[in-house]
Amino acid sequence: MAQQDGGHLENIRFGQGDTVVILDQTRLPNETVYLTLSTAQQMYDAIARLQVRGAPAIGIFAAYALAALAGGIGAADFDGFYDGLRALGAYLDSARPTAANLHRMVTRMLDTARRHGGEPLESVRSALRGEARAIRAEDIDMCRRISEFGLGLLHDGDGVLTHCNAGPLATSRYGTGQGPFYLAKERGINLHVYCDETRPLLQGARLTSYELQQAGVPCTLICDNMASLVMKQGKVQACMVGCDRVALNGDAANKIGTSGVAVLAQYYGIPFYVLGPSTTIDFACETGDDIVIEQRDPAEIREMFYREPMALPEVDCFNPAFDVTDHTLITGIVTERGICRAPYRESFQKLFPEHFAAAEH
Amino acid sequence: MAQQDGGHLENIRFGQGDTVVILDQTRLPNETVYLTLSTAQQMYDAIARLQVRGAPAIGIFAAYALAALAGGIGAADFDGFYDGLRALGAYLDSARPTAANLHRMVTRMLDTARRHGGEPLESVRSALRGEARAIRAEDIDMCRRISEFGLGLLHDGDGVLTHCNAGPLATSRYGTGQGPFYLAKERGINLHVYCDETRPLLQGARLTSYELQQAGVPCTLICDNMASLVMKQGKVQACMVGCDRVALNGDAANKIGTSGVAVLAQYYGIPFYVLGPSTTIDFACETGDDIVIEQRDPAEIREMFYREPMALPEVDCFNPAFDVTDHTLITGIVTERGICRAPYRESFQKLFPEHFAAAEH
Repeated sequence: MAQQDGGHLENIRFGQGDTVVILDQTRLPNETVYLTLSTAQQMYDAIARLQVRGAPAIGIFAAYALAALAGGIGAADFDGFYDGLRALGAYLDSARPTAANLHRMVTRMLDTARRHGGEPLESVRSALRGEARAIRAEDIDMCRRISEFGLGLLHDGDGVLTHCNAGPLATSRYGTGQGPFYLAKERGINLHVYCDETRPLLQGARLTSYELQQAGVPCTLICDNMASLVMKQGKVQACMVGCDRVALNGDAANKIGTSGVAVLAQYYGIPFYVLGPSTTIDFACETGDDIVIEQRDPAEIREMFYREPMALPEVDCFNPAFDVTDHTLITGIVTERGICRAPYRESFQKLFPEHFAAAEH
Repeated sequence: MAQQDGGHLENIRFGQGDTVVILDQTRLPNETVYLTLSTAQQMYDAIARLQVRGAPAIGIFAAYALAALAGGIGAADFDGFYDGLRALGAYLDSARPTAANLHRMVTRMLDTARRHGGEPLESVRSALRGEARAIRAEDIDMCRRISEFGLGLLHDGDGVLTHCNAGPLATSRYGTGQGPFYLAKERGINLHVYCDETRPLLQGARLTSYELQQAGVPCTLICDNMASLVMKQGKVQACMVGCDRVALNGDAANKIGTSGVAVLAQYYGIPFYVLGPSTTIDFACETGDDIVIEQRDPAEIREMFYREPMALPEVDCFNPAFDVTDHTLITGIVTERGICRAPYRESFQKLFPEHFAAAEH
């Protein structure tokens, strides 16, 4: 069982002495392992090896890491201390060069140290710990606000379909795309979450279904291609997803497969909501056509990412072998006697009269 | 390299003496292994263990198996021979009790034997071999007709998206849902096939992309949730799939995920074709609502079906990490300041005026 923070999954906290304790995301969902990190090297590795992942979580972790490492900087004066802190910040920042949050939070921690430059080093160290906690508290608050607005769109008893992971592990406490589900749990509002496994990297199976399971939110894991059937069967009243970047016209980039969920939702008449902090709105980007899509290693598709079980044994799964495609969606049915077109009954009758002869008499 | 039948993948044939040679589908795509089967037990196992699979292929195999085993029935007269043949037929038929084609072809072989009851046993045995070959030839002919009609719907240079497996391995030579692609190859018509991997059992990755690769048909493997993006990017001019059962109104049951492909195709204005023999049309079934959908083992989702690489290393893959959801598909974008709705630019401006202030001056 994972350690909880007032009933919430706790992914980053200060440990005893000058350490940071994190939930190792690379071992999930099969093992819940907490790592106590005390050296800069261990903290660098935690980011580089994705033991901590999710843009907001990486930023929070970097702040905690710098605050903890500050305790070990043996310097006679502030200048020496600050030089050490800056070197540690640059080192951590280099662990994932493209992570904007990481750089932003390292900069914020260095600014904090400078603001307290005239005070005793112990007081600077204490300010850094306070700032790290503030960064986390701000993220919790941001996620809580988004979750609150999102929850207002749902009703008790709703089924909600989600894609990929934008939950507590990637942020702090609530998350964004999945935040309303945890808030609903706190308030005693009953939801049932349908969780796309999210190929190729299976974040839905490995992370989202794990988080929901830990929080006691009823959840059913499905393969991505099962979304159409669960919508058709009336199991889903709303779709909620996170986002990586939103253009000014509202076009939203998110994990591959999100647009397909949205098309299905529209077809089945189900509302589709995107949840995210305003930092994901790119006010300089007019439409989604301006968003370049990252292409990744084909081995993620050809070979499986995860060789071990990738969802907890207790996770409920919906595993239909087939679905039925409505005739209004079919352009033609090609048989050995020719191509049938709508209306199909008449078309079948024309090509296969022998099957209708008896009924006509 | 797999053995070819005039350029086609050969899944079932007579071997030397009284044997049947099959391509072991359980070892694909990582190993191309042909099995020479000589005993009834081996042939039963080949069906039960899915070394031969696909409804038409199982039927053809049962006919070949009975014809080969007939050589080893040591009987003095026809009655003794027929008793032996019937016992062998019942044994093979029990390997997969729900396979309609298996039962039908066993019955047809027994009928053939009876029709030649007055002739010498060698002549009966020869008739059985002839009947098995006729069954296979009829299937090839049926698939060729369907493929021919299907190919007439495509144009040189088209991209075609397909789902699951309805190709040569499951049938003979061409297949149904994927038959037009092989016929196009023979005719020098250039197509590019986008092949859904088809979770949870990965028939698209393991079988369809293997078959297309063997036949030299250009093919790109995608995860199921990538279909929306390849359609949006204009890579797909038609969708073609097989079917398991078609209702009188044209509703078509096929591998899970097919209906989602059809909704996407309609949204992007791409024709969606279902291909299958008339034996899959259920003339007693009014609509798709009457079709019961099989629920399978959740372990297929939770644990991976295939622990080894499940597509050939040479198979091209398209692996975008993200896609962009068009704003017309988004009901609302939930931020920490509230819910934005279309038109989004105006809605963003209202909630986040500070990002627009500069531009307004």
